[in-house]
Formats: sequence, structure tokens, C-alpha cells
Amino acid sequence: MVEDATAAVPGHVTLAFSVHRDGDPVRAGSRGVGIAIDEPVRVTVGSGTGQSLNGEAVAIEAVERVLGALDVDGAVRVATALPLGTGFGVSGAAALGTALAANRAFGCGRTDEDLVRTAHVAEVEAGTGLGDVVAQARGGVVLRLEAGAPPHGRLDGIPEVAPLEFRTLGTLSTPDVLEGDTAAITRAGEAALEAVAAEPTLERAFAAGRTFARTTGLLDPEVEAVIEAVEATGGSAAMAMLGRTVVAIDAGLSAAGHEAVPTAVSRRGARLVEDGGAFDG
Amino acid sequence: MVEDATAAVPGHVTLAFSVHRDGDPVRAGSRGVGIAIDEPVRVTVGSGTGQSLNGEAVAIEAVERVLGALDVDGAVRVATALPLGTGFGVSGAAALGTALAANRAFGCGRTDEDLVRTAHVAEVEAGTGLGDVVAQARGGVVLRLEAGAPPHGRLDGIPEVAPLEFRTLGTLSTPDVLEGDTAAITRAGEAALEAVAAEPTLERAFAAGRTFARTTGLLDPEVEAVIEAVEATGGSAAMAMLGRTVVAIDAGLSAAGHEAVPTAVSRRGARLVEDGGAFDG
Repeated sequence: MVEDATAAVPGHVTLAFSVHRDGDPVRAGSRGVGIAIDEPVRVTVGSGTGQSLNGEAVAIEAVERVLGALDVDGAVRVATALPLGTGFGVSGAAALGTALAANRAFGCGRTDEDLVRTAHVAEVEAGTGLGDVVAQARGGVVLRLEAGAPPHGRLDGIPEVAPLEFRTLGTLSTPDVLEGDTAAITRAGEAALEAVAAEPTLERAFAAGRTFARTTGLLDPEVEAVIEAVEATGGSAAMAMLGRTVVAIDAGLSAAGHEAVPTAVSRRGARLVEDGGAFDG
Repeated sequence: MVEDATAAVPGHVTLAFSVHRDGDPVRAGSRGVGIAIDEPVRVTVGSGTGQSLNGEAVAIEAVERVLGALDVDGAVRVATALPLGTGFGVSGAAALGTALAANRAFGCGRTDEDLVRTAHVAEVEAGTGLGDVVAQARGGVVLRLEAGAPPHGRLDGIPEVAPLEFRTLGTLSTPDVLEGDTAAITRAGEAALEAVAAEPTLERAFAAGRTFARTTGLLDPEVEAVIEAVEATGGSAAMAMLGRTVVAIDAGLSAAGHEAVPTAVSRRGARLVEDGGAFDG
């Protein structure tokens, strides 16, 4: 009988990204700018089989690939208040949380970097994400300077913490976007990363995200209207890639009269938690 | 008038280390195994001058060097419940916390990695530590695979969280040890890191730490007696480098009849905190 293990992984919104394909999925990924947010995805792995998301039976390809890579067979329960398909990196978080929790439950003896690499490869091979896993492992406002998982990827961060708000208007399909022509996205993403690296502040990251969303055409009129409403009241907002979600600094959405969910930058990366979170060292 | 900024940095105990000197202080440092612990050093930077530690005026060379490197002049208040000179990396934490808080208070516009590098260099040049800063920036049970600060150093971690206890019997001078002949220390430290990398568990890290302490002669009879008492009751303990401190997994010290301070592995690395910690994203 295997004892359950639980990991908590922050949600992650990408503000701008470039696509870096590679035959080796450890080296493949994205560069860009994103924010780990203080609303976790909790993943519990124990004996049994099958996967559930907020109590409903599901099949998450990246999760199945992680279990396969660790050569274990377990039941995976994913729970989160984050909406799916709206740019919060829930699939990456599920993969990374599965890696951490399965390693603990089954005593796989892997290191942190091993587990991040395993989850990144699973997510890349499933086609559901390119950069969430490495950012979620780290936490904070994350600059993905070089694509890929350890030891190839390289991250830095902007040392800011701040309250945030988000509002979700609907879903976008990550595979649909990533399977399309990403050359224009990559040009805009490289420019955004360069701008933020030159002036590493949260405000600059949001401004670069807005430019990225407009340049790439990923911004639809409804999302744009919300972002402009926030800007009109002196706030700063951007679109979460890839979802029809607006994220704002501080109470920027509420101030503009929009209903919004409060959250914050999470400086915490993914970690094991004990007893349902009572001990969360 | 500058607004105060506060950072929280975990204490860090090294269990085994090797010394890597280099003319470039960014590349100099140590390899080894250590644990970020859930007892923070809080550093507040604001306008004014001078430094204090738990309310007493002090001069901390690494802190002064950080302020100089950031080209700012501020008052630095350090507060911690951790005892000094006993192997908890308080000087490294003070340097790193100063870097994070000063960057925020004075709007220096540095990234996370810039600040870690700045604090590491200050600590190396002050001669007060070689590996605490990079481990404290990361959090967790830290394997320092390559010496030095970003982008040269390389870290991994053991994905375990656990309650810990510590007992402090007295101080050791880090500069005295580091200025001596460190060849034997480095041989033993390399062997310890290799052993833990091959079997990355907390138990193995403690066992490697005990071997390291005995091989190097850094273990004095009083510290050794406490470690052996913990082992005799089925627990696992090791010496914190460099201090006359015993750290045990779970309640190993209490179980052996020793008074001890409870703590835990801190998965959290250094971070800014708001309003005295009310917002600690």
C-alpha cells in the first residue's frame, strides 16, 4: 500500500513568449515572461489508477506521460480553483505536481531538477505547453531566458511581489496556436523578452505583454476592451497566454468596474505539502 | 524619502562542503549539501545609515559590500531568532536580504540573479561564507553541484520536506576554518556530494554529513556525543557547518532527551515580504 503524497504548484500566466522547437524535448520550449500566481493546483498521487480533476474523471496526457517516465502506476487527483484552458498553465502544473507527488509516494529517488525535466518533457510531448513547467517550479515573476528544462533552460526573475486580479472571458486551445505558424509570435516574443530584460519591472512586463498580444493578433476585441478599461483608470493589465483571460496589477480590474478574482504574485515554486497543507514548509 | 523594504531569507545549514577558490568571486564558492530551514532572517532597508542586528548596532562587512555594489546608502536592520556564528548562514542571509530589500527600496532595477550574484560576491569577499547565499536564494534541501553564483553555479535539490530540530552548543569561526588548509575538507566534501547525488534522500544527506564531519576533524567530542545520542534512539543527526550545532530530522534531539528548537526544511527561498510579513506571497 502506497501512502498518498500531495504537491502544490502555482498557476502561471505567460505574458509573452517565443517558440523554440527541438528534436530533444528537454531542449524544446519557450522563452518569455510570465508570472507564477498565488492560486495553486494541488496534485495528490496514491495507489490505484485513473485521474480526476476537481472530482471528475479525466485523462491528462502530460500526467500519464509523467507516470510512464517514472515507471509507476498510481491514481492522480488534481484540484484547483483555476479555470481550465484559460492561460493558467493547469496542465503543466498537473504534470509537475504529479512528478513531485509520485516521486514521494513511490520513492523514485529523483532530484528536483530530474522531476522538473520529466514534467517539462511530458508537457512538450503532449503539446499542451512549452514554458509553464519550468516557471512553475521556480515561482515569482519569471524570465525564461533560454528555452528548455534543466540543465539547458535558463531562468531569471524580477524581484517584485504584488497583488493581482484576473478575469476570465473564455478559453483558447494551446495546441491549436502552437501547431500553427509561430514565426510572428516568436519575433514578437523575442522583442518582449529583450524589453523586459533591459528594464526588469512588473510594469514593464505588463506593457511588453500588451504589445505582444497586439502584435501577434492573439488579442481579441473583447479581451482588448477589458485591458483598455483598466488602462483608462490608470491601471496595468495584460492577456494571459494562452487563454481569454485578463490579468491586472493590484486591483486594476475592480477599479475599472470589472468583476475579478483577487490573487498575487507567488514567490513560491512547486513543492510537496503535508497533511493536506497543514505543513507547507 | 525612501520607503522601507523588507526581505525574508531562510537560515541555511551546510552538512558537507568543498572549497573552490577562484580569482573571480562570482566563480568562487563551495560545492556541497545543505538545508534551508524555516527560521528566517528578516532584513529591512530604508533611508538613513548604519546597521543593526536584533536592535544592536553592528557592522556586517558583507552587507556593506552589497550596499556598495548597488551604489546606495541605506540603513539596514537585521532581525532573526537564529544564533550567530553557529552555522546557520546568518551573514549570507543578511547580505542576500540586503540586496533584495535595497533593490526594492532604492529602485535599483536588478533581477533576482543579479542580486544573488551581488550578495554571493560580497560574502566571498568578506570571507564569511562560500555557499550559503545561493542555497538561501533557492530554498529546500540543496545540492550545490557547481560552485559560484549565477550564471556559473549550478544547484539541484532533494524534493523532501520534513520537520527538523536543532541544538546549538557554541560558535566556530568560518574565516578561521576557510583560511586554513582546506584540502582535506574538499576531498571529504566531494565524496559526500557524490554519495548524496547518487542517492538523493534526506537520510543519505545526514549520513554523508556525519561522515564528512568525522573525516575532516571538524566534529568535536561534545557535538559528536549529541549526534551519537540521537543515533542511539534510532534518529538521524549531523553537524551544521560551520558551527557547534546539531541538526536532527523530525524530533530526533527531543527523543534523545536533548533540549532542541523545532524547525523544518524551508522549501521557500529568499523573497521580499510586505508590511512586516502580512503579505508574504
